[in-house]
Amino acid sequence: MKRLQHFEGRRRVAIENVQPVIDGGQFPIKRVIGQNVVVEADVFSDGQGALVCLLRYRHETQTGWRELAMTPLGADRWGTSFAITELGRYYYTLTAWIDGFFSWRQEFTRRRDAEDIGLALQAGAQWVAAAATRAAGNDKLQLAEFAELLRTVKPEAGNPAALSETLARLMRAYPDRTLATDYPEALCVWAEPVKARYSTWYEFFPRSCVSDVMQHGSFAECEKRLPYVAAMGFDVVYLPPIHPIGLSKRKGANNSLQAGAADVGSPWAIGGADGGHKAIHAQLGTLADFQSLLMKAQELGMDIALDIAFQCALDHPYVREHPEWFRQRADGSIQYAENPPKKYEDIYPFNFETEAWRELWQELLDVVLYWIEQGVSIFRVDNPHTKPFTFWEWLLAEVKREHPEIIFLAEAFTRPKVIYRLSKLGFTQSYNYFPWRNTKSELETYFTELTSTEAREYFRPNLWPNTPDILAEYLQFGGRPAFMLRLALAATLGASYGIYGPAYELMEATPREAGGEEYLDSEKYQVRRWDIDRADSLKDFIARINQIRRENSALQQDQRLHFLPVDNESLLCFAKIAEDGSNIMLIVANLDPHHSQSGWVNLNLELLGLDDKPFQMHDLLTGARFLWSGARNYVELNPLVSPVHIFKLRRRVRTEHDFDYFL
Amino acid sequence: MKRLQHFEGRRRVAIENVQPVIDGGQFPIKRVIGQNVVVEADVFSDGQGALVCLLRYRHETQTGWRELAMTPLGADRWGTSFAITELGRYYYTLTAWIDGFFSWRQEFTRRRDAEDIGLALQAGAQWVAAAATRAAGNDKLQLAEFAELLRTVKPEAGNPAALSETLARLMRAYPDRTLATDYPEALCVWAEPVKARYSTWYEFFPRSCVSDVMQHGSFAECEKRLPYVAAMGFDVVYLPPIHPIGLSKRKGANNSLQAGAADVGSPWAIGGADGGHKAIHAQLGTLADFQSLLMKAQELGMDIALDIAFQCALDHPYVREHPEWFRQRADGSIQYAENPPKKYEDIYPFNFETEAWRELWQELLDVVLYWIEQGVSIFRVDNPHTKPFTFWEWLLAEVKREHPEIIFLAEAFTRPKVIYRLSKLGFTQSYNYFPWRNTKSELETYFTELTSTEAREYFRPNLWPNTPDILAEYLQFGGRPAFMLRLALAATLGASYGIYGPAYELMEATPREAGGEEYLDSEKYQVRRWDIDRADSLKDFIARINQIRRENSALQQDQRLHFLPVDNESLLCFAKIAEDGSNIMLIVANLDPHHSQSGWVNLNLELLGLDDKPFQMHDLLTGARFLWSGARNYVELNPLVSPVHIFKLRRRVRTEHDFDYFL
Repeated sequence: MKRLQHFEGRRRVAIENVQPVIDGGQFPIKRVIGQNVVVEADVFSDGQGALVCLLRYRHETQTGWRELAMTPLGADRWGTSFAITELGRYYYTLTAWIDGFFSWRQEFTRRRDAEDIGLALQAGAQWVAAAATRAAGNDKLQLAEFAELLRTVKPEAGNPAALSETLARLMRAYPDRTLATDYPEALCVWAEPVKARYSTWYEFFPRSCVSDVMQHGSFAECEKRLPYVAAMGFDVVYLPPIHPIGLSKRKGANNSLQAGAADVGSPWAIGGADGGHKAIHAQLGTLADFQSLLMKAQELGMDIALDIAFQCALDHPYVREHPEWFRQRADGSIQYAENPPKKYEDIYPFNFETEAWRELWQELLDVVLYWIEQGVSIFRVDNPHTKPFTFWEWLLAEVKREHPEIIFLAEAFTRPKVIYRLSKLGFTQSYNYFPWRNTKSELETYFTELTSTEAREYFRPNLWPNTPDILAEYLQFGGRPAFMLRLALAATLGASYGIYGPAYELMEATPREAGGEEYLDSEKYQVRRWDIDRADSLKDFIARINQIRRENSALQQDQRLHFLPVDNESLLCFAKIAEDGSNIMLIVANLDPHHSQSGWVNLNLELLGLDDKPFQMHDLLTGARFLWSGARNYVELNPLVSPVHIFKLRRRVRTEHDFDYFL
Repeated sequence: MKRLQHFEGRRRVAIENVQPVIDGGQFPIKRVIGQNVVVEADVFSDGQGALVCLLRYRHETQTGWRELAMTPLGADRWGTSFAITELGRYYYTLTAWIDGFFSWRQEFTRRRDAEDIGLALQAGAQWVAAAATRAAGNDKLQLAEFAELLRTVKPEAGNPAALSETLARLMRAYPDRTLATDYPEALCVWAEPVKARYSTWYEFFPRSCVSDVMQHGSFAECEKRLPYVAAMGFDVVYLPPIHPIGLSKRKGANNSLQAGAADVGSPWAIGGADGGHKAIHAQLGTLADFQSLLMKAQELGMDIALDIAFQCALDHPYVREHPEWFRQRADGSIQYAENPPKKYEDIYPFNFETEAWRELWQELLDVVLYWIEQGVSIFRVDNPHTKPFTFWEWLLAEVKREHPEIIFLAEAFTRPKVIYRLSKLGFTQSYNYFPWRNTKSELETYFTELTSTEAREYFRPNLWPNTPDILAEYLQFGGRPAFMLRLALAATLGASYGIYGPAYELMEATPREAGGEEYLDSEKYQVRRWDIDRADSLKDFIARINQIRRENSALQQDQRLHFLPVDNESLLCFAKIAEDGSNIMLIVANLDPHHSQSGWVNLNLELLGLDDKPFQMHDLLTGARFLWSGARNYVELNPLVSPVHIFKLRRRVRTEHDFDYFL
């Protein structure tokens, strides 16, 4: 504790438990343009004085704070909110003090004793005169007049001059803040584009945009595929790595160790004679072709997302030019990736702890900046959890300093705390455990954790029912209803979701081996020809779902999610409610892809803003409309028809009062 | 984010969510001598390396850290604990790193490929040789020998030299910590005497130690009263202020505004012609008499607690000598205490915001230090919530720097966040809402909050069923069973509790006015003659309860409290379990003072360490023993006999195996 002479002991207000805050302010919270930041805190002092509490906030480009009065919420909790209008960093903090004049005013309203009131008016005059010294111009004059008035008015209970609203307004404008308590931290908000929160992803392998199995797709062919993707309603097209692919120790089809001459290799084995992370695989095209693809996507309302996989094939130029960026074995050779006894001899991981780490990190940042210069604004980052946290914290901050619009999706399939940490460090969105959450209790538990804990402030899940690495067991055995259901769940539980296609819409369901999650004849190792016009494709179903997402803002956010009880373990029910309450969606899903299931949903009427009048549930998938009333309502879903209701709640049901001749 | 050249990016470990911590480390946690501090944290890194995590702790008098290896608890949580053995401040923090050698060792155990193993042994030799450079003496020689051994041994899977426990032990002693992550805060523990946690208080007015109503008690008379208090098993005797009492505007009996010549005034109206906060009221005796009282109490195993009431009567010397320490009214008079329209014209509060605040604060600190010099080690602080938080934070730290043994009880009957704040600032114990928590749900909710939230780390409730200010409604109407019940609840729910006597044991129950909580003929304003030998006194009951507390360590702590369900709203049941699990108490209380109540208790067998065998419940109040078995057991309490069971759980019930001739 400081000695008396070294501090100002008269700051009487305590500020505690400020929300939102991540790890004591170590990490920013996240918002997108158009959202609010609701700030609350416990603010209180000893005794009874009138407390004034202000929220102070500013965009990083502003030097001065903007201030908003916080309002008491009861039990010493105070709150207010501010709107996010610019990309980049915002800061917010609090200041509070016991206000002499308003404490005086509060007591004055309760005074009854005439002598007392006389003395109190003199004291009040002093508070007002002091404020006059802080004011200027007309305000100064007015305050001086009020001070004089208080000195001279008749001492009466509730004297109107003392309690004048004009005086109160003036006094609020010129407070004495010398003994204010400033909250010691400036907390940070990352303000990001709307797409950071609401996005619809489609992944495909550009080399598979072919009409013949032996041919290799190109960006030019991809361009022709884009309208198909746009018609399904996606707004992000994610391409696996587009760089030259290594030849040495190249993997063959189905991950075989022996590649044939015709084998195309894994796009994640990055780097060859033609270059590394800044080069383009020759068979896909040129940089000009790539930029044409970007333009075409933009015309269709889509962004292209690139894959950032920080690892090298054996032929990568870095290996020759910077052997110091890799770990050496005792015989001087470079250490390939391994997890003993497993070996991944076609890949050299970077050594992030090399003595030359600064040069390595700078080069990897340059890779990202290079592609941003080419027009890329979204990146999907491969295995970020195998690179140091400090590396990502530094790289993401460096990129966002100049480019706050850039979106990074973390492919962080790892332990929960590591996944969360990566999002705290700045990843915009993250893969997550959705592929392995299939039962009602798994889904309820997981999504309650994501949306009701502190994670909601910084973690944005992007839900993928499949990826090139994950053919989920549920999809292998559930047939068409499973594909419909998992897509509908991803698209309604998550404001952001994605699929790996055309494998998804064509319901590719055969694993390489029983019990595994790898696709047979995976595109990771070979070109695949997909018949996207197949009659049984889910493309129209997907298009309809994505249209519903576009038209219903409740589905464009994650936070206001509420699970509702159904008396059948195969039926999942949840509500999503738009931030402004204007749009309410109710989803009922049959998790059993084999049988019809029915049950009674138990609605929370208060949550949904309903009373005892009937209301209409409009299934936007089928167009069917149901009249419901009260909390308990019956649902029945046949998975062979539709495994899910996506209801829009329409409160108003017509009554006799709507009938023309009723009155 | 720092630029690359300005930081070390290779610290790979993240340390999050360290527990216990109060407000991000702003305030200390509290412990008493003999307790442990269990520290846990989320500690993890990218990738797969072998993580080493150490707890570092030290007493404030030590310059170097002591270090303890933390152990993984699963899901990236790590933990360990250290013991508190000295009074004063302890600090604790964490450090963690990815250990090169142990990462290597972990991988080595899984290696199968002969060529691989050969190279790995060479790499291992390098880790060991590097450690040898950090070691000295015999360890250095041994490590050098191990390095040579690894360089030359036959490359075989699971090579015993590589996996030698001796080598592992040596390597643990000489780790490379250059890239360790240090947790940035040193968190603080206040280590206090055992009495800070477990204490039994008895308050009485020394001036009422009289044999005749018109006489005024003295310290000499008080000495004669001490054996009576000690016999009831109390270990703290708390005296209301012992200083000269003001004459001007003195209050008469029952708080009347007109005092007669014989009226003795309120001891909280401190200061008169004879002196102020450092003086003793002449009728009570001299400083020598007071010190004799202290000695006598110590002989009986009790401490005397003084009242610290920082306010003045109108005749206090401060008023004349330091008018600048008080607020002035517009007419130059000193502002008396008020809460308009109420006036307390017999009291001048200090102005803690005076320009001369430093001199005022220093003087108030001197008051406390003065009484510590006289031998006082416990203070009960009157209305701390009407003085600034920063004042207490400073004063308590100043006192404890030289006197870490001093105990401060906060009379903080105010809003919850203010109560908690005062304890965070350093008050050892606190008054609380116990007087107004009477029903089962009130008691369960409140004590669950106190013992299962963060408050458990710094807030020590001291439970008072009555005080001179509070004759609780429950006591006014519940008769003898109510007095027995509320004392038993205070004594078993709280490791610290107290009563204001002899009003309590003599069951004084008449309020000054109906609906109020003030005592009729309150001792605050007059001398009372108590017949402590009355046949119906609760003194033996109290003595028995305090003896049970002394003999059962489960009742000497607050944290391990568990409420158990009973199917009757008038019956409350809870278990208290000693920290080491060796003592388990089960309390069943009938909250209805008028009727017998019965019901079925539902025990948590796992919590109580019970299996399907019968067990014995020994009621330490009555001596009765009940054989119980399984979770559901019947209880019945007649309040006219005993409103409470205070069971000691004795697990063992004799069976035929205990019978001499059974085998």
